[in-house]
Amino acid sequence: MLNSQDFKTAAIALCNAGRFIDSKGWVPATSGNFSARLADGTIAITTSGKHKGHLQIEDIMLIDADANSLDGKKPSAETGLHTALYKRYPEIHAILHPHSINAILVSRLFGSRIVLENYELLKAFHGITTHESRIEIPVFANDQDIHRLADVVDRYLDKVDVCYGYVIAGHGLYTWGESIPDALRHLEALDYLFDCEIRLHGVKQP
Amino acid sequence: MLNSQDFKTAAIALCNAGRFIDSKGWVPATSGNFSARLADGTIAITTSGKHKGHLQIEDIMLIDADANSLDGKKPSAETGLHTALYKRYPEIHAILHPHSINAILVSRLFGSRIVLENYELLKAFHGITTHESRIEIPVFANDQDIHRLADVVDRYLDKVDVCYGYVIAGHGLYTWGESIPDALRHLEALDYLFDCEIRLHGVKQP
Amino acid sequence: MLNSQDFKTAAIALCNAGRFIDSKGWVPATSGNFSARLADGTIAITTSGKHKGHLQIEDIMLIDADANSLDGKKPSAETGLHTALYKRYPEIHAILHPHSINAILVSRLFGSRIVLENYELLKAFHGITTHESRIEIPVFANDQDIHRLADVVDRYLDKVDVCYGYVIAGHGLYTWGESIPDALRHLEALDYLFDCEIRLHGVKQP
Amino acid sequence: MLNSQDFKTAAIALCNAGRFIDSKGWVPATSGNFSARLADGTIAITTSGKHKGHLQIEDIMLIDADANSLDGKKPSAETGLHTALYKRYPEIHAILHPHSINAILVSRLFGSRIVLENYELLKAFHGITTHESRIEIPVFANDQDIHRLADVVDRYLDKVDVCYGYVIAGHGLYTWGESIPDALRHLEALDYLFDCEIRLHGVKQP
Repeated sequence: MLNSQDFKTAAIALCNAGRFIDSKGWVPATSGNFSARLADGTIAITTSGKHKGHLQIEDIMLIDADANSLDGKKPSAETGLHTALYKRYPEIHAILHPHSINAILVSRLFGSRIVLENYELLKAFHGITTHESRIEIPVFANDQDIHRLADVVDRYLDKVDVCYGYVIAGHGLYTWGESIPDALRHLEALDYLFDCEIRLHGVKQP
Repeated sequence: MLNSQDFKTAAIALCNAGRFIDSKGWVPATSGNFSARLADGTIAITTSGKHKGHLQIEDIMLIDADANSLDGKKPSAETGLHTALYKRYPEIHAILHPHSINAILVSRLFGSRIVLENYELLKAFHGITTHESRIEIPVFANDQDIHRLADVVDRYLDKVDVCYGYVIAGHGLYTWGESIPDALRHLEALDYLFDCEIRLHGVKQP
Repeated sequence: MLNSQDFKTAAIALCNAGRFIDSKGWVPATSGNFSARLADGTIAITTSGKHKGHLQIEDIMLIDADANSLDGKKPSAETGLHTALYKRYPEIHAILHPHSINAILVSRLFGSRIVLENYELLKAFHGITTHESRIEIPVFANDQDIHRLADVVDRYLDKVDVCYGYVIAGHGLYTWGESIPDALRHLEALDYLFDCEIRLHGVKQP
Repeated sequence: MLNSQDFKTAAIALCNAGRFIDSKGWVPATSGNFSARLADGTIAITTSGKHKGHLQIEDIMLIDADANSLDGKKPSAETGLHTALYKRYPEIHAILHPHSINAILVSRLFGSRIVLENYELLKAFHGITTHESRIEIPVFANDQDIHRLADVVDRYLDKVDVCYGYVIAGHGLYTWGESIPDALRHLEALDYLFDCEIRLHGVKQP
């Protein structure tokens, strides 16, 4: 509930996550949105139109599991992508969607997916214990019709056992985790690994 | 007026904008200038020769709509580019002119204009609601004769319905908005999109 | 000993080193580990799973020279690489292991070693007094079997007179020094020289 | 004199300049040195071996115009390059010598000099009033024999009317000005212009 301690704690954590993410340059202008699922199943989520590096508690709103506003504030158009992920994965409690330049470059340079393998930092992802792992991050075409985009995402996620994030082409990245720190860890790892792959793109390796 | 609360509020906002812009490395040495139009039509603008990352209120001067000093301070040579924009666009109240390296590189790599299309971040620009948009940022040759340069800009702006900014070759970027936050949002978006295009320049995309 | 002033001083210095190293982007997610050898031969070392940019004293544990926990906390899997270096080099008292992207790129671009020569900054390394020096940083294949990896490192170090650090491919960098400031100086110098070599890689020089 | 207000003011300004320069990554490890000439002709200069991002007043020493220590502290080996510049140019009162990566790359990519022309930021240099200017920054081979290196610099400076700085290959940059802010402005401008030229190196321009 909106006045609960649970909401306040989540809202402050989302504001702080925003300051960190902005310090990396990953949410220019007023781009990006972040959410956290509370114990009662409601979701704290950033309202649209605010700079994510300067969030205040009043910039966080509360929605139900179907993306209906519970406090009269207007949710962002992309809220449907958050609620779809929360319905699919009961264990996750945080979703981060920045617009990092590396996510843009991945979508322009690597086609419909990027494969990350043989990096020690893969161990930052939940359940991975060796660099001899291979994860795939899909790239979906951008679409202003969020229902249609959510369907594309759903069809992909139906087919894979595990997924740590996805890129929307020319747009940004979605990643998630069991908690906000978990999602932040996945975000830092993905941007780092994207950076490695981008900088090695087109370079002949020994 | 110089002692009005309106001037003081604008001056503080320009100083803070300068600190943010300098933190990005976009106003090296004492480069750049920023302005805000007040409710009475006068214009608060940075004086020349100061580092824009360390502005104090006394580094902001007041001019009238024709660029005449209203407080005895000497305006920058480029003030005429600001007043021309304010006269053309009654709705804008802030103009930012940084010297970001990305603006320089755009002018060296993309010729007389750069086209930005198919980016979600285009929605950061006033009036744009879909990534399926296309904006053009013109690049003008640099000129120490500001009247002549202003004429070149005017002839271009006469021909286009909407314009979010322009680049002066080997020099920097001009962008604007209905308020200082609006202009800052346009600036962050333009530098980000320039960065994307520069990093993809010469790279074969899938 | 765990309650000694020596431990507390080392633990605070390791926390501060972590904040500096994180500010450079060299320990994304919860990667990296750092240690300091105390006067009595015990070793203060970061526990695993914590973000190295936000270390608190309780995130530093104490082990003996054979990597046994002295305080019940669980050491990181890579602790064996630290203790092997401390046994080999009695004069060193600090070891830093970040995951900088430059270390990753070195391992992908330069094969089994990178040679650094003709840089003034080589004088940052203990015992070097002229840029007309040449140092070699070896690159070892990554291995989750730390004993096996430590053996590979040992066989290399047996053969060389002096070594300032080593890279583990797709993983990160190990460097060390007689004190934490010494090891930090070596780390700054190595990342800087890696950066120079990476940026010149594939570029025809005059 | 060492206890004069003039010395203290200069020493504090050098410490602050060091923090700024380090924030840009231009003085890794303990590299670089900075100086300021006082009204009485003595020179405040950084001692060697300290990290320039963490300077304290006691890390600044006083020398005479011939580089003799006036306070018993040991001057850096490169002090002779400072005193030679002060003798040549009576109007300058500050010299900055960082080790920026861009200076390294310039020396590796551009041979014996780099030419900077057609940049608005050239106006940051003392006496330049139009982008239609052309300045040359020479690149000298590195040499641990500072007297010999100073001679090479002197022979070059004898031949040119004006010079804003020089690069030592694989080493760093020297720049100067009439005051510390003046020298900092020249430093920011040079690194920015080097960055532009490096990023355009090998790129076909329209």
